[in-house]
Amino acid sequence: MRRVRIALLGCGTVGGGFVRLLSRERDRLRERYGVDAEISQILVRNLSKERPGVPRELLTDSPLKALDGDCDVVVEVIGGTHSAGAYIRRALLSGRDVVTANKAHLAERGRELFDAAAERGLFIGFEASVCGAVPIIRMLQHALAGDSVESLIGIVNGTCNFILTRMEEGMEFDQALRSAQQCGLAEADPTLDIDGIDAEQKLRILAELAFAAPVRRVTTRGIRHVVLKRGSVLRLVAEAYRVPGGVELRVEPRELPPDHPLAAVRDEENAVIIRGRAMGEVMIRGKGAGSLPTASAVLSDVVEIARLRPPLGHAKAAADAAALLK
Amino acid sequence: MRRVRIALLGCGTVGGGFVRLLSRERDRLRERYGVDAEISQILVRNLSKERPGVPRELLTDSPLKALDGDCDVVVEVIGGTHSAGAYIRRALLSGRDVVTANKAHLAERGRELFDAAAERGLFIGFEASVCGAVPIIRMLQHALAGDSVESLIGIVNGTCNFILTRMEEGMEFDQALRSAQQCGLAEADPTLDIDGIDAEQKLRILAELAFAAPVRRVTTRGIRHVVLKRGSVLRLVAEAYRVPGGVELRVEPRELPPDHPLAAVRDEENAVIIRGRAMGEVMIRGKGAGSLPTASAVLSDVVEIARLRPPLGHAKAAADAAALLK
Repeated sequence: MRRVRIALLGCGTVGGGFVRLLSRERDRLRERYGVDAEISQILVRNLSKERPGVPRELLTDSPLKALDGDCDVVVEVIGGTHSAGAYIRRALLSGRDVVTANKAHLAERGRELFDAAAERGLFIGFEASVCGAVPIIRMLQHALAGDSVESLIGIVNGTCNFILTRMEEGMEFDQALRSAQQCGLAEADPTLDIDGIDAEQKLRILAELAFAAPVRRVTTRGIRHVVLKRGSVLRLVAEAYRVPGGVELRVEPRELPPDHPLAAVRDEENAVIIRGRAMGEVMIRGKGAGSLPTASAVLSDVVEIARLRPPLGHAKAAADAAALLK
Repeated sequence: MRRVRIALLGCGTVGGGFVRLLSRERDRLRERYGVDAEISQILVRNLSKERPGVPRELLTDSPLKALDGDCDVVVEVIGGTHSAGAYIRRALLSGRDVVTANKAHLAERGRELFDAAAERGLFIGFEASVCGAVPIIRMLQHALAGDSVESLIGIVNGTCNFILTRMEEGMEFDQALRSAQQCGLAEADPTLDIDGIDAEQKLRILAELAFAAPVRRVTTRGIRHVVLKRGSVLRLVAEAYRVPGGVELRVEPRELPPDHPLAAVRDEENAVIIRGRAMGEVMIRGKGAGSLPTASAVLSDVVEIARLRPPLGHAKAAADAAALLK
């Protein structure tokens, strides 16, 4: 049995979902994967807030206590780029594997973090950062390793897709946006979503994995001023493809033929079509956001880390052997 | 750089595709994954057959020479259950990892093979055995590890789907079957496909990965006697779900509503929808067969094996250290 102790940073929508999900999946993970995952600390800002189902004794408001305590993996689900970034760096410097859902920070400082992790033989899991429950990261990193990706195209922002689906049904943009806000799918300030910035950040992450080539041009248009023709299907499409010397990225609203595979992707769903040279098109589709779907991607990363690490006993024996040989 | 020497058993549709694919992807795999994969032997029945693009000096018709030669991984793409099974067992007994596309043998003797591999710390990759290029095996094994699967439903036999798509367009069953045979999508004896046996074998593999629970009931009906109502969509659907004490499997032709996600899966495409307790539905769709799509799944497994094995240098250092400690 591989024991994994987790420091959980953040206990909001995703963090709270993770606590609930792990408590109900823990026995299955022990049986199926031989992984015993447990939360050792939970970093929160407000210790006195009601958090149903979250054990009070695990809570701390001290980042140092959470980060430097007894843990193997740091799960960062705070979001934002400021303190989250500092925590991830500290976790890596102290030899902890990291799981994060923080696409903004990865899009901005990903290269630096991955270099820091690689230097120390550590793992950064970020499946939850793009497309929620849809395991698109792992597909591009490993599952489709046998083929060269020629292009990828998808719907990676559930908020815009929800708004466009409502508009298809007759709502005006403003009304559809308010409806998304009421469903908890859009922030009070929806700029990042509706201006296509969130989609661009996700597309940058996917393109880096798919092509490992420099980004030559980026075009990003949001959905703020779209006009929907009656009976037509409009989607905020994110596309990446090879151009001489690198990759071009485009995020823009596009009218799709009704039988296009992305036209069937409605509401807050996400989908990505990967076109490979040998394999043709592979499409994956599922819930792009939400507490439990995103938490399930985080937990999959924790299990993956346990799979890639030798059992603690072995690691210790190897370290002992190495020490004796010195 | 991790060097992987491959003994390739079989050089037909998939094997020949694998030789071509590896030769064009080899540089990318070195750069991207630090894996240098090369074929050291190719076992064929007929040494004198023309095989464009296949280096003659790698061919052998001696199974022993291929299996006991200088190789780390045995890739079995012969098919059938008799000699292929014996070769896989011999490969495992001599400490080689195995990649196979052989669903018939896995459905029949999978448990025994996986136990033999686990005992020796070896890896059996079988992504290519179900749904060709679609990485459904890896999704169920690892990418969706964080959630419990409640049910799965899909189209896993491309031959039947091709025939049913032709019938939708107005052909009679016999005519559609002949058309599939002309396209190389159906065997001269199409029994395994059209009676649903191939779909059942694949469903057994998927259900074992998804539920790891005993199969309580199996219902298998093929498409030999289907009647298609004008304007309706009929698909050979494979479904697995939990029942008290285990899992129930069903393979049967079903009329689907035109907006059902599986209704859009046409020709030889495959698709599977996995319903998880936390993540909701995730659907994956792509080419279920064909030389290069299937070869890409085989090559992804080879890369995965290299990723899970420590670099040879490290392994040797560890072995040396262990020997010194004895």
